[in-house]
Parts: sequence; C-alpha cells; structure tokens
Amino acid sequence: MSSLDAVLTHIGPADEAAMAAARARQDRLTKPPGSLGVLEELSVRLAGVAGACPPPLPEPVAVAVFAADHGVHAQGVTAWPQEVTAQMVANMRAGGAVVNAFARQVGAAVRTVDIGVASELPAGPDLIAAKVRPGTADLTREPAMSRGEAERALLAGAEIAGRLADEGYRLLATGDMGIANTTASAALIAAFTGADAEAVTGRGTGVDDAMLAHKVDVVRRALARHRPEAADPVGALAAVGGLEHAGIAGFLLGAAAARVPVVLDGVIAGAAALVAAALAPRVADVLIAGHRSAEPGHDAALRQLGLRPLIDLDLRLGEGTGALLAVPLVQAAARTLREVATFDDAAVSER
Amino acid sequence: MSSLDAVLTHIGPADEAAMAAARARQDRLTKPPGSLGVLEELSVRLAGVAGACPPPLPEPVAVAVFAADHGVHAQGVTAWPQEVTAQMVANMRAGGAVVNAFARQVGAAVRTVDIGVASELPAGPDLIAAKVRPGTADLTREPAMSRGEAERALLAGAEIAGRLADEGYRLLATGDMGIANTTASAALIAAFTGADAEAVTGRGTGVDDAMLAHKVDVVRRALARHRPEAADPVGALAAVGGLEHAGIAGFLLGAAAARVPVVLDGVIAGAAALVAAALAPRVADVLIAGHRSAEPGHDAALRQLGLRPLIDLDLRLGEGTGALLAVPLVQAAARTLREVATFDDAAVSER
Repeated sequence: MSSLDAVLTHIGPADEAAMAAARARQDRLTKPPGSLGVLEELSVRLAGVAGACPPPLPEPVAVAVFAADHGVHAQGVTAWPQEVTAQMVANMRAGGAVVNAFARQVGAAVRTVDIGVASELPAGPDLIAAKVRPGTADLTREPAMSRGEAERALLAGAEIAGRLADEGYRLLATGDMGIANTTASAALIAAFTGADAEAVTGRGTGVDDAMLAHKVDVVRRALARHRPEAADPVGALAAVGGLEHAGIAGFLLGAAAARVPVVLDGVIAGAAALVAAALAPRVADVLIAGHRSAEPGHDAALRQLGLRPLIDLDLRLGEGTGALLAVPLVQAAARTLREVATFDDAAVSER
Repeated sequence: MSSLDAVLTHIGPADEAAMAAARARQDRLTKPPGSLGVLEELSVRLAGVAGACPPPLPEPVAVAVFAADHGVHAQGVTAWPQEVTAQMVANMRAGGAVVNAFARQVGAAVRTVDIGVASELPAGPDLIAAKVRPGTADLTREPAMSRGEAERALLAGAEIAGRLADEGYRLLATGDMGIANTTASAALIAAFTGADAEAVTGRGTGVDDAMLAHKVDVVRRALARHRPEAADPVGALAAVGGLEHAGIAGFLLGAAAARVPVVLDGVIAGAAALVAAALAPRVADVLIAGHRSAEPGHDAALRQLGLRPLIDLDLRLGEGTGALLAVPLVQAAARTLREVATFDDAAVSER
C-alpha cells in the first residue's frame, strides 16, 4: 500500500460470528469446558482474525528481524559496542544466531531487515534493504528521527508484512536487533503508558547497577526534553523511538490490514505495539504476546495492550526468540478447533 | 528388566563433566550470557542426561498415556461418569482427543496404555495391554491395590519406557486418562509432601464448591485410614494411588535407567514423580516439568521435586497435553548448544 493511511483504513474488526462459533465449538470438544485455559481464548481470537471457525492452521511462519542502531549508544547505556548490531545481522544471515536455531525448531523462515543499521551491510537476497537512515540520532540531544523518517519506517514495516502475507505466510513473528534498543523501548513505554522512567527501564542484555541508574537518567532526560505523548504517536515515535520500533509498529499494522496474526517478541515489540495500537486500536486483535521478557517495561506494555504472554522463562535476548518459542502453542490452539472430536462425534458421555 | 530392583540399580547420576562443558559453551554462544533464562539450565541438564555436550536433539518423541479407573469414583468425587475413561481411550485410539492434536503439532507418537481400565478394551496394535487389575478399590474403604499389584504396575511402566528407548525415542512424555484420578493424586501428594489434604485437593476437571469440600473429606479419610508414608513409597502408592500413577512412576524410573529425558504432564504425573523420586532420588535428573496445572497439589509436588514448569497457561486437561506443549521448548534448549555460533566462530565483539 502506498501510504500509512491506506494501511490504517484496511484494518477491520475481528469477526464476531466466527468468534462465537469458536467459543461454542470449544465447549463441544471432548474435554472439560475451559480445561485448555489460555489456549481456548487464543483459538477464539484466531477464528476472529481469520473470519472462520475453525480457523486455518497458522502456518507457514515467518519472523522478520528489524535491525537498527541508536544514537543514544553514545551515552553509555549498554556494555556492548555498537558494531555488534551489524555483526549479529551477519551472524543471522549465516544462520548462526539463536533466532535461526529457534526458527529451525518451529519451521519458520527468517527475514532480516536493515531498517537502520549504522554501517553499510553487504547486499544479498537474504537481506531486506529498507534502511531509512544509518541509525537514529541521540535522543538526549535531538529527536531520534524526523517525523517523515518515522513514517517511512512505519510504511516499510507495513509493506514487509503485506509482502509476507502475499507470499502465503499465515503467522508472522517480530524480531529485532539493535544495540541500545532497550533504552528507546523504555522511553516509548513511559510515553505511551504514563509510567515513570525508573519503573520501565531495565538491564537489557546486562548492565550493572551504576549503568542502570545512568540509563534511567538518560530515559528521564529524553522524556523531559521531548515530552512525547500518546496522542501524537508518530511524533512520540520519532522523538524517542528507534527505527526498528517504527519498522515493527508498521509490520503489526500491515499484518492487521492483511488479517494475519502476529506473535510479538519481547520489550522492543511491546513498545512498538503501543505505537501501533495508538495509531489503530484494532491492531490488538491480531497481536499475540509470545512471552514475558525479564525487562520491567515489557509487563507495563503488555498490561496496557491487554495481552497475556504465552511463555515466561526469564528470556531477555530479543531477535524474535521469545516469539518463535510461542509459535507451536499458537498452532496447537488452532488445532483444537480443527482436529479434536466433539462429544457427539466420539460418543463420549458428558457430565 | 525383570524386576523393579534391576531398574533402580540402572539409574546413574547425571554426567557432571558434560554439564560443566554445557555451562561453559552457553557462555560462549553469540548472545548475552544468561539471556535464554530457564532454557540455559535446561540445556545443561539435557547434556547431563545424555552424557555429552552438545546433547543430541531430543527427538523423536513419544507420549505414553496411562489409562485406569478408580474405585473412589463411587464416593462421588467427580461429575463425570466412570465410563468416560474407556470412551476417551477409544477417542485417543481414533486420533480425536486433544493429546492427539497436540502430538501431531510436535511430531510425537501417542502410545495408549491400559494399565487398569475397569472395562475390557478392544485389543489392537494401537493399545499397549498392561492391565494389572480392572480399576482400583475404593481407597476410603481398603487399599486401592495390593503391594504386589503396585509393583507389577511400576514394572510395567518401566518396561514401556525401556521399550520406547529401544525403539529409538529420545524424548518421552507422560500422559494419563482416569476419571477421578485427581483424588488419588491429592492423597499421594499429601502423603509425600506432608501437606494438608485441603491444600492439595482441587477441582479437577470441574467440581463445584460442595463437591470440592466432599473431595477434601474423602482425601482426608483415606489418609487417616491408611497413614501412607514417603518412607514406604510402594506401600503409600498401593494404599492411596491409582494404577496410572504406578505405571507413570515406573515409566519415569525406566526412562532414567535408559537415560532418556521425560517431560511430565500435570498433577497426576507430579504425584507419580514423587513416588519415583522416593524410590530413586536420582530420577529427578531426567525429569522436566512440562507445565504448571491449575490443580493446587501440582505446585506442591513441583516444589518438592525442585522443578520449574516450562508452561503456565491454566491448563487442567491431562492426557499428556501440557507435556507435549513443552516439547518444542526442550528441543529448542538442546538446539542452542548444537547450532548457535560462538563469539569466535561468528567474529562478534564481546562486552
């Protein structure tokens, strides 16, 4: 689609009739009603997105890993050198990262997206070249990006989701790679939930107490400088977000427009989802929280989105790893509606 | 193996050298150390069971569903008629139960075991005929089974695990089917953890407040009559257990003897694992808690076993469903050690 507005106008409501049919069917399957817990409501949501009961099996699966760098890295908010972003993109393209191993586990395709890595990356069919700019500016000094750049990154993400849907993928997952991106995530989550910087800023992939206190201060200064507000989602995203946040937010909107469910990874995806939901509240219908990250801001984001995470194993890696681990659970939920016999079919007595 | 003692003597310790190598390797993989949370320690345990780092990928997978009936059903502890046990076994053999759908999701074979269903079941290659007796006696009036019957069911379970290991299965999962089996589970968990009946007795697959109070009273009377003690695991199992508990406990011991990891399903498996651990504490090395069931006794059992569940989605179905959902997580943990590049391999900078 040619503009973000066009994407937004294509996001329709979940199909209430399919959801009602799914609820009724869950109660006729050969199991005690409600005994599949969270997976029953998930199956209902899948029916609502697909507009059909039973919903199709959500496969094949693709994870899009949005990679970008962050000007705020200069503020010393992480123990990792910035060059690791590009090195890890190379590692993913070679199949050596954890996201690749987990993708093989669940049969997912990995698409690596350069939405804003600071260095030039070797071109190739295994990289989606969508660089909006070579990393953001330092959000403690100026807006991370311009409004126009944020809009371009949103649209690029939406187009990638639409293209994956056109290629036949029926379940998408979000991934990210960007040294320092938990700092921008914390600022976005504070902006969109109203939480204090301290409550939503965490240790990322490993910072000590002193660096954490400094990181909280950086987030606080960014919020004080830009005063980002949920009422202006693109403005807030441009001021304190990252290019991968913008790409992922657009990806979620594009998936919603294509009526394809998306499994969210951790805190970066949670922050991006807040942006997307502020632009189009109905996007939440297609979102599935893959896991609860160890980052404190993630919980605040999930609560505001009304999403319960499927996996809770103290993961804090990112890349899409937590989203991929949840994929078989999503598919299992759909299978209940598709494959399990009813009491009548199987001649099983009821209570 | 010809006797339970022979099985017990084959249970060796985890391989400490392989575990140390796995811990060292996790810290060299291209991710922040510790960022895979619970899955890192799980990968270490898989290395310890296999005696190799990296451990083999734990596949193919088989779930054994132990089915049995319960004399305590006569006390009105469940809203479901007893005939549902046999009907659900038929449903499983036809592929129509939730366990079948979830097995297809994770590529697992389903083996249904008649360890003590009250009625005669049609023979066939899709049923392991291991009936020790046609259901237990009513544990409020007499021991559920004799000590000899408990030992026969334990050995049958161990032999099934050994046979599956011989067939090449490299990850096993427990399943159960037995109307009223949460009552016997509560009694076993109270006996082996010392918890009060009220703290470990739950609603199973759906009982109302009045029936729950009655169920607690039934468990309390059974404990008062038999005084089962962890110091005599087989005696306690015989007094208040079920035939599926005995079969599953033996299955766990047989898996440990064959050094094959086993994913536990919910509260029935948790109760059986307490019996197995009382007979051979080292069995815990091969046990993986698939999920946390909504039954209160399950938590008490997992705490005593020192196991953290991988999935926590308010499931309370049984059949092996919670164990199967965790299978991809176990396999993903093994994949990290097998497939992820090290910092040196991938030329990624460190902190």
